[in-house]
Amino acid sequence: MNDLLEKASKAKEAAHDLGIKTTEQKNSALESISQRLTEESEFILEENQKDLNRGKENGFSESLLDRLTLTEERIKDMAQALMNIVSLDDPIDDVLESWERPNGLHIKKVRVPIGVVGMVYEARPNVTVDASSLCLKTGNPVLLRGSSSAIHSNKAIVQVIHRALQETDISPNVVQLLEDTSRETASEMFKLNDYLDVLIPRGSANLIQTVVSNASVPVLETGAGNCHIYIDETADPKMAKEIAVNGKTQRPSVCNSTESFLVNEKWADSYFNEFVEALQENDVELRGDQKSTEYVPSLKQGTEEDWATEYLDFIASVKIVKNVEEAAEHINQYGTKHSEAIISETEENVEAFFKRVDAAALYHNASTRFTDGEEFGFGAEIGISTQKLHARGPMGLPALTSSTYIIRGSGQIK
Amino acid sequence: MNDLLEKASKAKEAAHDLGIKTTEQKNSALESISQRLTEESEFILEENQKDLNRGKENGFSESLLDRLTLTEERIKDMAQALMNIVSLDDPIDDVLESWERPNGLHIKKVRVPIGVVGMVYEARPNVTVDASSLCLKTGNPVLLRGSSSAIHSNKAIVQVIHRALQETDISPNVVQLLEDTSRETASEMFKLNDYLDVLIPRGSANLIQTVVSNASVPVLETGAGNCHIYIDETADPKMAKEIAVNGKTQRPSVCNSTESFLVNEKWADSYFNEFVEALQENDVELRGDQKSTEYVPSLKQGTEEDWATEYLDFIASVKIVKNVEEAAEHINQYGTKHSEAIISETEENVEAFFKRVDAAALYHNASTRFTDGEEFGFGAEIGISTQKLHARGPMGLPALTSSTYIIRGSGQIK
Repeated sequence: MNDLLEKASKAKEAAHDLGIKTTEQKNSALESISQRLTEESEFILEENQKDLNRGKENGFSESLLDRLTLTEERIKDMAQALMNIVSLDDPIDDVLESWERPNGLHIKKVRVPIGVVGMVYEARPNVTVDASSLCLKTGNPVLLRGSSSAIHSNKAIVQVIHRALQETDISPNVVQLLEDTSRETASEMFKLNDYLDVLIPRGSANLIQTVVSNASVPVLETGAGNCHIYIDETADPKMAKEIAVNGKTQRPSVCNSTESFLVNEKWADSYFNEFVEALQENDVELRGDQKSTEYVPSLKQGTEEDWATEYLDFIASVKIVKNVEEAAEHINQYGTKHSEAIISETEENVEAFFKRVDAAALYHNASTRFTDGEEFGFGAEIGISTQKLHARGPMGLPALTSSTYIIRGSGQIK
Repeated sequence: MNDLLEKASKAKEAAHDLGIKTTEQKNSALESISQRLTEESEFILEENQKDLNRGKENGFSESLLDRLTLTEERIKDMAQALMNIVSLDDPIDDVLESWERPNGLHIKKVRVPIGVVGMVYEARPNVTVDASSLCLKTGNPVLLRGSSSAIHSNKAIVQVIHRALQETDISPNVVQLLEDTSRETASEMFKLNDYLDVLIPRGSANLIQTVVSNASVPVLETGAGNCHIYIDETADPKMAKEIAVNGKTQRPSVCNSTESFLVNEKWADSYFNEFVEALQENDVELRGDQKSTEYVPSLKQGTEEDWATEYLDFIASVKIVKNVEEAAEHINQYGTKHSEAIISETEENVEAFFKRVDAAALYHNASTRFTDGEEFGFGAEIGISTQKLHARGPMGLPALTSSTYIIRGSGQIK
């Protein structure tokens, strides 16, 4: 049996046993892993160094090496994240609905684990801990497929997780790491419907696209964010500038940062110059449409391509629009259905924006940067779903669950 | 532009406009379709006759011809089904959750349409009306891909739907029928992620498997039912027999009918003979394991294959088991995660069954035949999901919806 089938089978076999563990048993296992990570940090750092050395030999970029790097501090953060997950409510066995039928049948819908989760990710070794702990808390075994560049780090972390679990009520088999990181094996994994209940890709748009295009296992898609802020005719100018600067510059590298501004022409008549200045003072390069360069001739003119670009950098596109309808149409054409905001004091236009724009999160008078499990109060986040099935927007623990109908009768037949 | 892309584009373009229609506008359109179906029944029956003639020429089986056949009566049923959908609550805009964050952001999660639904189905022309009306009620345009054997009937029905919609506030473009029913075009449709938000296959296990294996568009999988009844040591013998006979014989051709009986050996000691007789009196052919033939030597012995077979006929497999654990293990190995029942008077064993068996619907002292949208009180059913993401078990209107987070602030930045 190859690496993939062996590990997928082990994970599947472990599913039932993990599914019936109590919250206390699962929390105690998470605590053990947290403790052991700190205790064995030296071992993990040694193994991580092997990946870093190979990365340097292979000429990895600074940012890639940074994502690959573990430190005492980062391991401490991972251990702390585990303790946070311990403190969250266990969604399993929650009763979602219950009702009685005229024939006396009593129906209730309860949360259950999904089954085996296939996690496909790139360099960051912290995802190994993150995915394992979120899956463990929700009763799902996980099959991890990290990148070859982080294989030593990932193996070390999984060894530590296994050693921790050996002392608990939970089988180490619930966390499985593919050591074969070839593309062929990944392709095989994406079609392993008999063993895997869901695939969660985490990483670049390219990785996610590869999984979506090739998988027959259902995918929980997390995606890119080409997020817009529409500044309406009645927008408070100070608020609009503050939110625009925050959305773009507070952390440009993340998916909920703002990439594009749509400015109402009547608002622009009064405030466009100071708006552009505010962004430029914060080191933002703006790329405007024809019309916006008429307001500010020094503005660099963008191309069609800019409207669809997620810069993840101190760059933003800007377009002058007639009204909320034109803004919504532009967003629906170029957006990625992630997070979209309107700044306005006109409730009618806010409602029109909410009705017309198709996205996971729609904001009125607030920064797009709030689309995040932590900010929503979920405590933990598996990712931000930009698909429409199962879960949309920030995904907390419930996104890693399914449901079962429990029907109790007294001999009912049809 | 080919047939597929032309119709997929039209459906996608119609999505936004349909999404903002009021419940009244959608209901009024459904009523118009209902009325027009009755009025134009003669035209539909003429076109249906063409499919039937070709089916006979091609030597279709009686049961296939029956599924293809429309009658005045069946058209009346379709028109009535539409009126039932009018009477159901519109799930769109329902507020699922709402809360306030410490920073003053107010978050609410509301139901929205999914987008464009791709419906892939076989002979039955009533699915054309069924799918169109369920999608219309939930604000989703639909791209229909029926089988070539029903193409005249489907075209006629869609023409009637279009003529009805022309007199309403809703664009006829919300219902699109692929006239190109080639396999190549179907394969292309399964990968049309830019246009379709979900695929729903309805029909044979083979059709569903083809869609699941080849689609990159997310699939709402409805599936086969290899359903079991476990008769526990303390089962009431009369109730056990009644439920077994009902589960198997009330309508053997449907997915929630019972296919296999697992009988506790202690119960079998007292009641197995009369249990077998009760089923045989109802024309059920039983195929037993070694042990059950020791109880009833005349019993036909089954093979390994029987455990995994969904007979959809007056045949059932039967196996003697030691306890609820063995029953659960057998079900998890051979079942299809559809509907599973335990007949018992021992609450501890019922709990163990519920905890151990992985299925969409779990029953205590009731027939598996109740897994159905109508029986659950949903009013309408798109199908019974045997997958674990998005929706599991009978799917009512909410299964055709997604959600959006609406966040209202007063200038919050991060």
